[in-house]
Parts: sequence; structure tokens; C-alpha cells
Amino acid sequence: MSQYWSQLVHTLTPYVPGEQPKVDNLIKLNTNESPYPPSPLVLNALTNQLNDKLRLYPDPSSEDLKQSIATYYGVESRQVFVGNGSDEVLAHAFMALLKQDKPILFPDISYSFYPVYCGLYEIDHQTIPLTDAFEINPADYNIENGGIIFPNPNAPTGRLLPLQAIEQIVQQNASSVVVVDEAYIDFGGESAAQLVKRYPNLLVVQTFSKSRALAGLRVGFALGDSALIEGLERVKNSFNSYPLDRLATAGAIAAIEDEAYFKQSCEKIISTRDTLTQFLEDNGFEVIPSAANFVFTKHPQMQAEDIAQQLRKKAIIVRYFNKPRIDQYLRITIGTEQENTQLCQALTDILKAQNT
Amino acid sequence: MSQYWSQLVHTLTPYVPGEQPKVDNLIKLNTNESPYPPSPLVLNALTNQLNDKLRLYPDPSSEDLKQSIATYYGVESRQVFVGNGSDEVLAHAFMALLKQDKPILFPDISYSFYPVYCGLYEIDHQTIPLTDAFEINPADYNIENGGIIFPNPNAPTGRLLPLQAIEQIVQQNASSVVVVDEAYIDFGGESAAQLVKRYPNLLVVQTFSKSRALAGLRVGFALGDSALIEGLERVKNSFNSYPLDRLATAGAIAAIEDEAYFKQSCEKIISTRDTLTQFLEDNGFEVIPSAANFVFTKHPQMQAEDIAQQLRKKAIIVRYFNKPRIDQYLRITIGTEQENTQLCQALTDILKAQNT
Repeated sequence: MSQYWSQLVHTLTPYVPGEQPKVDNLIKLNTNESPYPPSPLVLNALTNQLNDKLRLYPDPSSEDLKQSIATYYGVESRQVFVGNGSDEVLAHAFMALLKQDKPILFPDISYSFYPVYCGLYEIDHQTIPLTDAFEINPADYNIENGGIIFPNPNAPTGRLLPLQAIEQIVQQNASSVVVVDEAYIDFGGESAAQLVKRYPNLLVVQTFSKSRALAGLRVGFALGDSALIEGLERVKNSFNSYPLDRLATAGAIAAIEDEAYFKQSCEKIISTRDTLTQFLEDNGFEVIPSAANFVFTKHPQMQAEDIAQQLRKKAIIVRYFNKPRIDQYLRITIGTEQENTQLCQALTDILKAQNT
Repeated sequence: MSQYWSQLVHTLTPYVPGEQPKVDNLIKLNTNESPYPPSPLVLNALTNQLNDKLRLYPDPSSEDLKQSIATYYGVESRQVFVGNGSDEVLAHAFMALLKQDKPILFPDISYSFYPVYCGLYEIDHQTIPLTDAFEINPADYNIENGGIIFPNPNAPTGRLLPLQAIEQIVQQNASSVVVVDEAYIDFGGESAAQLVKRYPNLLVVQTFSKSRALAGLRVGFALGDSALIEGLERVKNSFNSYPLDRLATAGAIAAIEDEAYFKQSCEKIISTRDTLTQFLEDNGFEVIPSAANFVFTKHPQMQAEDIAQQLRKKAIIVRYFNKPRIDQYLRITIGTEQENTQLCQALTDILKAQNT
């Protein structure tokens, strides 16, 4: 508390990200990074940028990156917005598009940054409960609102909403913006990117931090009708002219270009997810069907928090949320095959100790 | 205009940064970048970061960089805030500290992003005219206000306010925050950083984009009492957990470490500024005394805009502001010695053509 803070600052409850441990010898399955390195093309592209030009500002509109993303998704570059990670893109979307007279809607269980943005921009919101099976029911979003946002696949559940259901929500809310936060879409979902040309109220947000293995570079983007993108640009250009540095831009372009590497990484993660899901189910865990690079799981006889603590003692970090409805669940990021084997062994040991 | 924009978006007048030309064969003296490359230590540090760890999120609090800055300025790391360029740091300062019931104050001629931030965060402001000599008069800031912000040296004039005058403004406004925007302080000014331990209402903002030659990496920072910094952190952590990527952080730390290179670059720029100032005065220009890496100058017989256009034809870009009180001035970034020689030759040719 300080007399020098604005009134707003006193009211904020900031977001708390998952731990980024400073030691190296941990199996880190807590913040949904890719277990695989970025494409070698990315490292080459970055190497090529290590020169005198770092003294110069980057292109403030990141036109090359926008064009690269636009080409990949079959849209125009004026239908692409880029930012310093998808969190920044989401923040601008809240201010530019979701700050309306009526409350916005999002699931009761979803990305916990959404209510934080609402606090920052003084946006009213109403949470819509997921079904008992942690599903989004499109019919629940057919009420008056100032906008809608949800992750797909949802986080931290991993559950996917089929594209048809997304389209239903977008259609039945023609007068408000629907933001689909697709941070995890590449691990088994079908992107709503293909719908942005048909629906002027749809904004699709993605990130390079998960499937493109570039969490360390901070690049996210949004696809939408050019009017929505212009709204985001107006806020961005009133906030920070140059949010993407020269290296991040070059790395992201290279990541888009290496489609083979991208697909292979995603396939390996999906395969390991299948292996882990099978193991968990074979050992008495309940697993929410996941289309993400993590699983959301609980064990009927063990406290989730207790399992997380025991895993930590075995140098494995997973994510536990002490929140209503999900405090019996763990969110476990999919690691490499070897990390997954070690995780399964650790869980086997924990279960064995529990049963003796 | 779009029905999907928030009310605020319709009201915004975004900032327009100086041109970043896409061709290489120009002498670029328009956006105050360093004419010298970053330290070789920076390129080494960046090279060392080009590895598999780019898949992992950076430290959300950039603790290593904060510690490095804190050590350099003799403060504690909790007195340091870092952001994605000083523009992002300033944006957060407007929201966290300068959004108050009373209007904030800044000079009529100063960084043109300030009124843009006021628009973004709906902050009332009052501009205080510089004197006829483009000086800030501390007594003019001894009126009721919700906060004060100014660049020192001022932009685009280059004029320095002595540290004693800064201290006077800070002292006479003990109940509001005074933000000193020191983007150009390393080119001849004395930083107010040494005052932050004594004044809880002083925030000093700096950047790596000018004297540290890292405009391409996007790193800025603020120094202030830990309560001010906490206010900034609360906004930052409600906006974007990870604004600084792994490469930017490592590059900035290395830039701080190479003090000899830093000093040498600044000295060369100051020396070239002296050469240019002398040339301009010898050729009939009026030059505002500059403590920055640019000069602000006008010629009594020639239109500034006309000179800028003629320089552009000779492949030299300088900055012209079509704004009240300064529309007869050019802001010219200090280039390398060779660029400066070419600039002086071009100006000689333009003046000669004018006089024939």
C-alpha cells in the first residue's frame, strides 16, 4: 500500500504464474512448455540476427511476422495482430474489445488470468460453470453479454470444444466479440482460424510458447476481422510502439517455416500424452480427455496436493491449483518420453508407498 | 470504427513513432538510436542463450537483470522495475502512479507519447509551457497536480535540467509522484538515480535503446522507492507475466557489464555532437544546447520541413515535427563521425543551393 499508487492499483489481484525454478536438475512439468527444443531453423535465424543492427529499433508493426502468420493461416496480414506473448495480446483484447457495458462471460474453470484482466481494466464479468464433466455447453453462452472468452482446449482441463460448437457460440453472439484462446490448439484440436474470414466478431489468439517451443522468446498473435485487429492496433500503439524485438520476430518467422519439425514435435507430445493417460488410468487415476500438451487428473484415494508434494521430493514439478472444483486435480505437462517414464515410475512408487 | 470496439478505442489517438525504413542505404538520423553497435559482450551473451532453453519461460521477475541494474546504480533490486522498452515502463507508470484525481503536469514540448498514455488511461493532464529558450522552469511545477513527468534531457529539445532543479521539483511535490524520463541522460547529464533513496515520490526511467545501443532488444527500467516499484509490479503482473524474453534479459545484463565500451560510445557521440553543433552554428543555424544524442536546430532563412525533404533526397533521414512552437526545428540524431561528415556536406550543399 502506498499513497502514491492510483486507486486501481490498490484493488488489483495480480496473476501468479507457475514456478520457474532456478535449478536445472528438475523434471519441469508445471507450465506447459514444449519438452522439445525449438526448430534448428529458429536457432539459425536468431544467429543471423546477432549483429550491429541490434542498435536499431525493430519494425514497429512486425509486418514480416504478420505476413508469415497470415500466409500460414490463409488470411491477410491486416487480419493478424502480434504481441509480446499471448498474454499481452489477451490484455489488449480485454481493453480494446471486451470492455463493454454488459458483463463478459467465461467459464468458471479456465485461464486464471481472465479475471485479472477484468480487474485491471474494470470489466464486469460473469463466470459460466462448466458441466460436471468439465465441458463447455454452448447453450450456456446464449445470454446477454459484453463479450465471451474461453480457452480451447480449455485450461487447465485440456478438454476440447469441437469447431462446430465454437461456431455455434460465435453465431449466437453476433453483436459481441468471442475470443477463442487457442494456446493449446496444435495438440489435437481444430483451429477456429479458418472461421475468422466469415465471422467479424471472432478473435482467435495463439502463442509460440507451447507447440512452437518458444516460451523463452515471448511471441503471441491474434487472427480476426481487420476491424477487430485495428482495435487491437490502436491500443497497442497507445501503449508500446515496439513490443516485439528483432530476435523474437526472426525466431517466430523461422518457427512458422519449419512445418515438418513443428508437426513432428506435436505428434511426439500427443503420443506421450496417450502413453501417460493409459498409465494413469491403469493406476486408478481419472483423466479428463485432453487435446492439450498436459493432462488434468485426479486419484480417488489420494489428495492431489499431497501427490504434487511427493513428486516435488522426487524432483518432478507439476501444477496444483487450490481452487474450488479442481482442488483434487493435478495438471501435468507432457514431457519427453524419458521424462514421462520417470514420472510414471515416481507415481508408481508414490502409489505403492500409499498402499503399504 | 467498429461496433466491436470498446468506447475507449474510439477515442484513442495512437503514438506515431519515427520511420523505420526498410532499405539499408540511408543515413538514419531520425530515431535517436546509437550509431555504434552493441558491445561485443552483448553479442557473446546472446550467442550463449541460443540453445534448447528457449523452450522455457524466462524468469517472470527478471531478477538477474534487476540485480545487475541495482548494483550499477547502488540501489536494491526491489527498487528496480524492468519492462519491454521504456515505453512499456512509462505506460505502467501512468496507470499505476500517475492516474490520480488531479491532472498531471508535463511540458508543452516533450515526449509526444505522454498525452497518448493519458488518453489510454483516461488521465487528465495540463501542459506547462517551456520558457522561450525551451527550458523547464521548476517554479512552474509548484501547483496542484496528480503527478509530474518530463524527460531529462528533454525531448525533442535536448536541453538538460540540472540535478538541483530536479530535486527542487521533487521536494516541492512531496505528495505526488515525479517521473524523470532519462532516456538520454548518459550523453552529458547527471542521473537522478542517486536521489531515489531519499525521495519516496521520485521515479527515474531509463532505457537500453540509446546509450546501450539495444533498441532492437526492447529493454527499459525504472528506479524508485520500493513502494513505487511494487505499484508498477502489481500492474505488470496483471498485464503480462513475462515481458522480457531470455535474450533481451541476457543482452541487457551484458550491456551493463561492459562499462568501458559504454563510456567510449557515449564519449564518441558527445564529441561528434560538439563537431555538429559547431558546424551548424558556423553555418547560421541556431542550436539548442544539447545533453542528448541529438541536436534540435533551426535555420533562420530556411523552412525546417524543406531541409528535411532535401536531406531525404540525399539519403539522410532526420526528424521533423509539425507541431506548434517547434515546426521550424529539426531533430538530428548524432551519427558516426563519417555519417556526420556526410550530413555536414549535405547541409553545405543545401545551403549553397539556397543562396544561389
